[in-house]
Amino acid sequence: MTDAVPLLGISNAIVDVLAHVDEAFLEDIGVPRGSMTLIDEQRAKEIYDRMGPATEMSGGSVANTVANFASLGGRAAYIGRVKADQLGEIFVHDMRALGVDVRLKPAQDGAPTARSHILITPDGQRTMQTYLGACTELSLSDVTETTVGAPQVLLLEGYVWDIPEGPALIVEAVRIAKRRQSRIALSLSDSFCVERHRQEFLDAVTDSVDIVFADDDEIMALFETGNFDDVVETVARFEKLFVMTRSEKGSVIVHGGQQVLQPALPVKKVIDTTGAGDAYTAGFLYGFTTERPLDECARLGTYCATSIIQKVGARIEKDAVTAYSQAL
Amino acid sequence: MTDAVPLLGISNAIVDVLAHVDEAFLEDIGVPRGSMTLIDEQRAKEIYDRMGPATEMSGGSVANTVANFASLGGRAAYIGRVKADQLGEIFVHDMRALGVDVRLKPAQDGAPTARSHILITPDGQRTMQTYLGACTELSLSDVTETTVGAPQVLLLEGYVWDIPEGPALIVEAVRIAKRRQSRIALSLSDSFCVERHRQEFLDAVTDSVDIVFADDDEIMALFETGNFDDVVETVARFEKLFVMTRSEKGSVIVHGGQQVLQPALPVKKVIDTTGAGDAYTAGFLYGFTTERPLDECARLGTYCATSIIQKVGARIEKDAVTAYSQAL
Repeated sequence: MTDAVPLLGISNAIVDVLAHVDEAFLEDIGVPRGSMTLIDEQRAKEIYDRMGPATEMSGGSVANTVANFASLGGRAAYIGRVKADQLGEIFVHDMRALGVDVRLKPAQDGAPTARSHILITPDGQRTMQTYLGACTELSLSDVTETTVGAPQVLLLEGYVWDIPEGPALIVEAVRIAKRRQSRIALSLSDSFCVERHRQEFLDAVTDSVDIVFADDDEIMALFETGNFDDVVETVARFEKLFVMTRSEKGSVIVHGGQQVLQPALPVKKVIDTTGAGDAYTAGFLYGFTTERPLDECARLGTYCATSIIQKVGARIEKDAVTAYSQAL
Repeated sequence: MTDAVPLLGISNAIVDVLAHVDEAFLEDIGVPRGSMTLIDEQRAKEIYDRMGPATEMSGGSVANTVANFASLGGRAAYIGRVKADQLGEIFVHDMRALGVDVRLKPAQDGAPTARSHILITPDGQRTMQTYLGACTELSLSDVTETTVGAPQVLLLEGYVWDIPEGPALIVEAVRIAKRRQSRIALSLSDSFCVERHRQEFLDAVTDSVDIVFADDDEIMALFETGNFDDVVETVARFEKLFVMTRSEKGSVIVHGGQQVLQPALPVKKVIDTTGAGDAYTAGFLYGFTTERPLDECARLGTYCATSIIQKVGARIEKDAVTAYSQAL
């Protein structure tokens, strides 16, 4: 049986291709600012051809959380599909280098490793054009007693519902993990993803999920309201833990009748918001799995998010980790 | 006949794999701090396996110069060999995205695209472990009237002498370019490279080369002296342009009896010295090909180098270019 790690993530394994662009570029390629769009290989080629020079680094929403959790000192494992190509090697290397237990071997055939073209505008916002490639081939058979094991927390991302066997493999992973007393956490990914799978997410939140991570757009999309105060009232009726991030408005944690309000920290200059939510989740879960009170979890999440938005890229760096270790 | 661009570079086409390490890591892998070592595929795998998470970006010494020259607004072309693999695509994309005319198609077979593991210590110094891969297969037949054309400046790097057909293809490129009245520039690459090819470099400098780019270690290695003042005296006897960078001591340009001393600019914090010399060369050549006086060329070089050492990576970014354009 696989070791009982504090955190296991199941998600789309993606290499980020980051470039700075101006607003006109987004208009030219006809993409709404701040969105995440799924694109096919042909469109990926088109966009890449038109993009400026880029930097490549491992990414993926829950994959970032798992990596950051490991950087903070937590033991973590990961299930996601890459091909055995150069980008796949990079993805797996970057996980293993942090001590993450990567539970699937890169696939010898099939679609190439996924990449997300992350277009960063001068205000630091990112617009993502994602070619899922190998991720779409993650299958039910990849989720077994051995690969899932008995994590303290099983973290899923909404994006997994976008892949053909996603819903089925999630049911199976949850079944295995629940039997081993794992808590199930779900990150809602983005508001467009919530639109695509609202009913499934509502069912999951009502049924098997114990912890929901969302930003305000995502949680408002889930409950189909434009009013965040309504959301807070609604989620208080669930016996679940809701962790909701609100950019400069800080974060709000609701657990039944309990509420924690965590203000955002001052930031000199926002460089790139990519991965802010993922980093928050990592810090929060690091606190949660080491049994800190909720307000401390929220602070840890906030530290991580604050660090990540002041640099390009979605993963915490070694220096930052050293700084945060002192806070932990 | 190919267009007469201001700058054509011929060099090793490399993707950088950048990671922060501590001094102990360099000791562990038995590598002298600040060196560039050529390694084979097996050793590359070993080092990569032991390295922390990395960021990938296009690199290569003269390739960086060509990219930065294009970022500054100069028209440039490039000859270097990559394979048609994912890293090769990245390399070519990043060049083309800057408007560089990439004159060789990625190779369908042979060794994979080269990568240089760049290990950055806390003081910002970089130690490079380079697997040359596809670069070693750059051949005499890649250098033709069509690919070389008639550049205003043909820029070569010392590292090309490390590859089997390097010396022969350089002779041919120089022959073609000289007939078209090109100036020949040579970047000495690094002092270890100078040790490996001192006689060839001395012959080239005496014979066909018009402009030499070197840092103080390299130029002292070339003339086998530990005294920089001796070097200045020696190079003054050549009817060539010597452009010598000296880190915090600034740069010294010598052209026969003419001398320019350019002080370094103050820097808050050195983050990563990777590519400082390459960026200097880009700024200098941008000034040179637009017929600025030598002191102005030196200033442009210094601006570029100063920009590059305050960030991770060896290529100028868009924002920086905008700032420098105002100075140009």
